[in-house]
Amino acid sequence: MGITSHSSDEGAYRWESIPVEGYSGGTDVFKGVTKQVLFSDEQGLSSALRYFEVEPGGYSSFERHEHVHGVLILRGRGRCIVGREVRRIRAHDRIYIPPMTWHQLQADEDEYLGFLCLVNVERDRPQRPGPEERAELKADPVIGPYIRP
Amino acid sequence: MGITSHSSDEGAYRWESIPVEGYSGGTDVFKGVTKQVLFSDEQGLSSALRYFEVEPGGYSSFERHEHVHGVLILRGRGRCIVGREVRRIRAHDRIYIPPMTWHQLQADEDEYLGFLCLVNVERDRPQRPGPEERAELKADPVIGPYIRP
Repeated sequence: MGITSHSSDEGAYRWESIPVEGYSGGTDVFKGVTKQVLFSDEQGLSSALRYFEVEPGGYSSFERHEHVHGVLILRGRGRCIVGREVRRIRAHDRIYIPPMTWHQLQADEDEYLGFLCLVNVERDRPQRPGPEERAELKADPVIGPYIRP
Repeated sequence: MGITSHSSDEGAYRWESIPVEGYSGGTDVFKGVTKQVLFSDEQGLSSALRYFEVEPGGYSSFERHEHVHGVLILRGRGRCIVGREVRRIRAHDRIYIPPMTWHQLQADEDEYLGFLCLVNVERDRPQRPGPEERAELKADPVIGPYIRP
């Protein structure tokens, strides 16, 4: 039978028999993020649906790439940088991240942020800003103060 | 900005600017189901993530097809037929529906059931049982009593 029960283990969302993976990209670019792949090409799908859970005060890496993200917040509250904008996000909000658009998801200081992220199985590698581009982005009056780390 | 706020409108989950569609397949094979396409090829994805909401006492159509479903329950409680099994389902359970496997999702009598369903954009049309196959399935001691209508 194809049903995988969901549980909440010490505050974290978990699915039985779905391994909890570290988040990729180097520990200096994200904080407190786990990943669980719920569906992918292993099940015959051409896109993968991943669940990312961000600890209170944590954040995903600030990055961009050619492939798009389809994001649905599953739990909690936080903040999202998309392009040159910053917005509050909460459970069940939908976020579309277009190609080559800088983005980062951040949990509030007192709450987990859990989100589903849909990507095509065939996709390019994420890019992170180099020193010059980082300085320019950090100087942006809207998103600069929110970019982590 | 790509953020689409979520709201709860008279009990139903809704996303701003995402149209609420009727569920396909003829009104005699399902009951009280709406559909919202959250992501699809319009956003450059090769799979589509759809949100289906089933009213209390409602059900999706009993069907099978070559393409797989990746399902994640978003709200509520109900029951799921997959192949020759029946299981209780609740928020955040994950359900994998393999190729050519009969399936149906049903809401409890007193609660909405909302679920995400991931499918490849390129897929075959659903099949429903003909009269003889329906009679055989209805005679199954496990799933027979639960098949709707």
